Amino acid sequence: MENFDVIIIGGGPSGIITGITGKKQNPDKSFLMIKEDEKGLVPCGIPYVFHDLEGVKQNEMGPKGFIKAGGQVEIDQVIKVNSDAKEIATKNGQKYSYDKLIFATGSSPIIPKFIDGYDLEGVRYIRKRYNYIDELRSDLQHKDKIVVIGGGFIGVEVAEQMAKYKDKDVSIIEMEKHCLYQAFSPDFAKKSDELLTSAGVNVVTGKKVKKIIGKDGKVIGVKMEDGFKLDAELVISAIGFVPNTKLAKESGLELNQNQAIRIDNYLRTSKDDIYAVGDCSGTHGFITGRTDNIMLASTATAKARVLGYNLFNIKLLRNFYGTLSVFSTEIQGKAFASAGAIEQTAREADVSFVTGKFKTMDRHPGTIKDASEIEVKLIVSPGNGEIIGGELCGGKSAGEMINIIALAIQKAVTVYELVSFQIGTHPLLTSAPTKYPLIKAAEDAIQKIESS
Amino acid sequence: MENFDVIIIGGGPSGIITGITGKKQNPDKSFLMIKEDEKGLVPCGIPYVFHDLEGVKQNEMGPKGFIKAGGQVEIDQVIKVNSDAKEIATKNGQKYSYDKLIFATGSSPIIPKFIDGYDLEGVRYIRKRYNYIDELRSDLQHKDKIVVIGGGFIGVEVAEQMAKYKDKDVSIIEMEKHCLYQAFSPDFAKKSDELLTSAGVNVVTGKKVKKIIGKDGKVIGVKMEDGFKLDAELVISAIGFVPNTKLAKESGLELNQNQAIRIDNYLRTSKDDIYAVGDCSGTHGFITGRTDNIMLASTATAKARVLGYNLFNIKLLRNFYGTLSVFSTEIQGKAFASAGAIEQTAREADVSFVTGKFKTMDRHPGTIKDASEIEVKLIVSPGNGEIIGGELCGGKSAGEMINIIALAIQKAVTVYELVSFQIGTHPLLTSAPTKYPLIKAAEDAIQKIESS
Repeated sequence: MENFDVIIIGGGPSGIITGITGKKQNPDKSFLMIKEDEKGLVPCGIPYVFHDLEGVKQNEMGPKGFIKAGGQVEIDQVIKVNSDAKEIATKNGQKYSYDKLIFATGSSPIIPKFIDGYDLEGVRYIRKRYNYIDELRSDLQHKDKIVVIGGGFIGVEVAEQMAKYKDKDVSIIEMEKHCLYQAFSPDFAKKSDELLTSAGVNVVTGKKVKKIIGKDGKVIGVKMEDGFKLDAELVISAIGFVPNTKLAKESGLELNQNQAIRIDNYLRTSKDDIYAVGDCSGTHGFITGRTDNIMLASTATAKARVLGYNLFNIKLLRNFYGTLSVFSTEIQGKAFASAGAIEQTAREADVSFVTGKFKTMDRHPGTIKDASEIEVKLIVSPGNGEIIGGELCGGKSAGEMINIIALAIQKAVTVYELVSFQIGTHPLLTSAPTKYPLIKAAEDAIQKIESS
Repeated sequence: MENFDVIIIGGGPSGIITGITGKKQNPDKSFLMIKEDEKGLVPCGIPYVFHDLEGVKQNEMGPKGFIKAGGQVEIDQVIKVNSDAKEIATKNGQKYSYDKLIFATGSSPIIPKFIDGYDLEGVRYIRKRYNYIDELRSDLQHKDKIVVIGGGFIGVEVAEQMAKYKDKDVSIIEMEKHCLYQAFSPDFAKKSDELLTSAGVNVVTGKKVKKIIGKDGKVIGVKMEDGFKLDAELVISAIGFVPNTKLAKESGLELNQNQAIRIDNYLRTSKDDIYAVGDCSGTHGFITGRTDNIMLASTATAKARVLGYNLFNIKLLRNFYGTLSVFSTEIQGKAFASAGAIEQTAREADVSFVTGKFKTMDRHPGTIKDASEIEVKLIVSPGNGEIIGGELCGGKSAGEMINIIALAIQKAVTVYELVSFQIGTHPLLTSAPTKYPLIKAAEDAIQKIESS
């Protein structure tokens, strides 16, 4: 039986980054990654293989960096973990012993077994699997009526991409009053609905799917609880993901209420020398302090780096607890991004807040050719002025601007500090220094704190 | 004699922002701004009026926001300040008394009186004056051989813009071995030289101008100290700016060695109730702690906000001392940005540092259509891992990414923290979470600290 110092189960972003970081920190230790599929995909790139990218090949991701760092990779599946003997067994009949074992088993789409018709031919998911997505991409070419169930990021992005084929009739169904409602306050979310509509997507919100209708075993439509019907040749269910924790559970690891592996701040599970990272591991809200359910590659890789550095001893102190969800997307060329608390989540978690808002152009003067409007909303704790969340809507730079807000939240920056924040501005790249939107939104928040 | 609670001398970005912020904080106080020209210009937008913008009109800037907030504006010039009587006199014969007086008198181009021929017809400057720039813009249309002296930001941007007229022959002369050498380390600065060359600019570096050659009182060329000559019908001297402090000096205010008004951390001058803000006021390096000479609208507005809040009492604590220079520009569609220390300035100020570098694509997968390369260099204090500077070269998002670095420097963020920094990423907007360049550069710096 071959022994490895570290065995990583899974080859997604968290497995890869744990492997690379861990191996670089511990060049003398042996690292094995066991992954099920030969080829992987950039998870957040998947929606774009349906239109903007030429195919799945353009979105391939693999453990090249891990191998280059000296790690070994096997295509196989772990079927049993014996945590007492510190041994694992695989589907191909291999056995390995380990010193440290890492669950990086990821997540899978929720299968809506509670919806009648979920198992009809023509009901598909956004699985993070190369061959499945490749097949779905081909299949798509012959389907003209498409219904996406679920208006989260994946659903919205997939619908937007599919609507770029002008001959297709694409609808999206969301039960909340707007799509992207987990990440944006109503005014921002409304804007994204409008853009999605202008992209040619039929946006159906505030409705719940009752049934997927079939004929001869094939999907022909979707019926809502209020009786409203949509024809469909292809239904894509994008109602969320669940952690892949069957093996973890069988191995005796504790799970949380979301079926994610329970971990501490250094990614340790309830069993010695077993760690969990990425989508299969539990998260706590950075602001709310409560268990939540965030599955993002960016969060996964942040955890993976902490784990990679700290596998054999705590070398890199982690001085924060909790997952800051930083979301971004683009709809019809308009970027939407949010970080930390938004109005709904703050209210729901009973966190006091004021908002600071500002809207301006993202170039200066605004007459610069590629200028577009940028709108900021900061969510601020009125007690001490700390920034606890933010939302952005604007040009592509919003994708990095949200990371300024993310850093501000993580470093407990207050709006009082932000007011004299020394920034860089340039006509062709940013808003004017006199109207820099984060600073102006901070001023607005201060005014609201003072008058409250 | 009319009395105002606050009188601001100057209507540039620092005057405007001090006025707006101060008036909003003190709605009951009366504010007067005295400015010399009816119309103003967005300072950093000036290079772009020569080509990308349709004209100076598209780059106009004025105190509209200040007037809207309730401030009063007079077009006039202050010629005398009596700080004992707290009175001022203007060119138009007006007299005003004040409670608080603010110098926001800005800066002017250095006139190279030490270069023979500086006063020939056809030698021009990048003055921040509407009519002058409008005239220069018209004049430019009839001039085909243009020589820009000085490869700082203004010089580089003006040269790049003028080279966009394909019939013009544009050269730039810089005495350092690269243009933009005050803001970028040699490898980055070299890249900007190359892009400038590919833009059609004849880049002449490492040479010093000895003489501007004239005939019949008009410029016909420029001669270098080594004898090298360039023909010229128009010479634009862009060798830097000097603070406008003649009035301040006459008023008895202390100046520093750069002829800037000496101020403390709350913008107070050596005389009670007189403040100075923006280019006319002195700066200290955030990292070096020494007097320096930074004149940027972004820095000016940051100071102006501190002043605006604190005019009548210290309401907004300023918990940093010193000016963080954050620079950005774009050459041939490539953004260049830097913040804080760079290799040369750190070395010169005897600040220990290591560098962390990383290069990747700014979209993920890199096959996304508008992906461009992004390169990061972090300057890090090896003692505690604090980020003290950074440079970026890449797509337009670099304009906001540099503000993540700027915030990190201002909040003393370490590379150890940056490694587990929770960021937002999206295929169409940013680098991959597995390769986010600021995090990877932080990792590189850690490795260098450990192996040093």
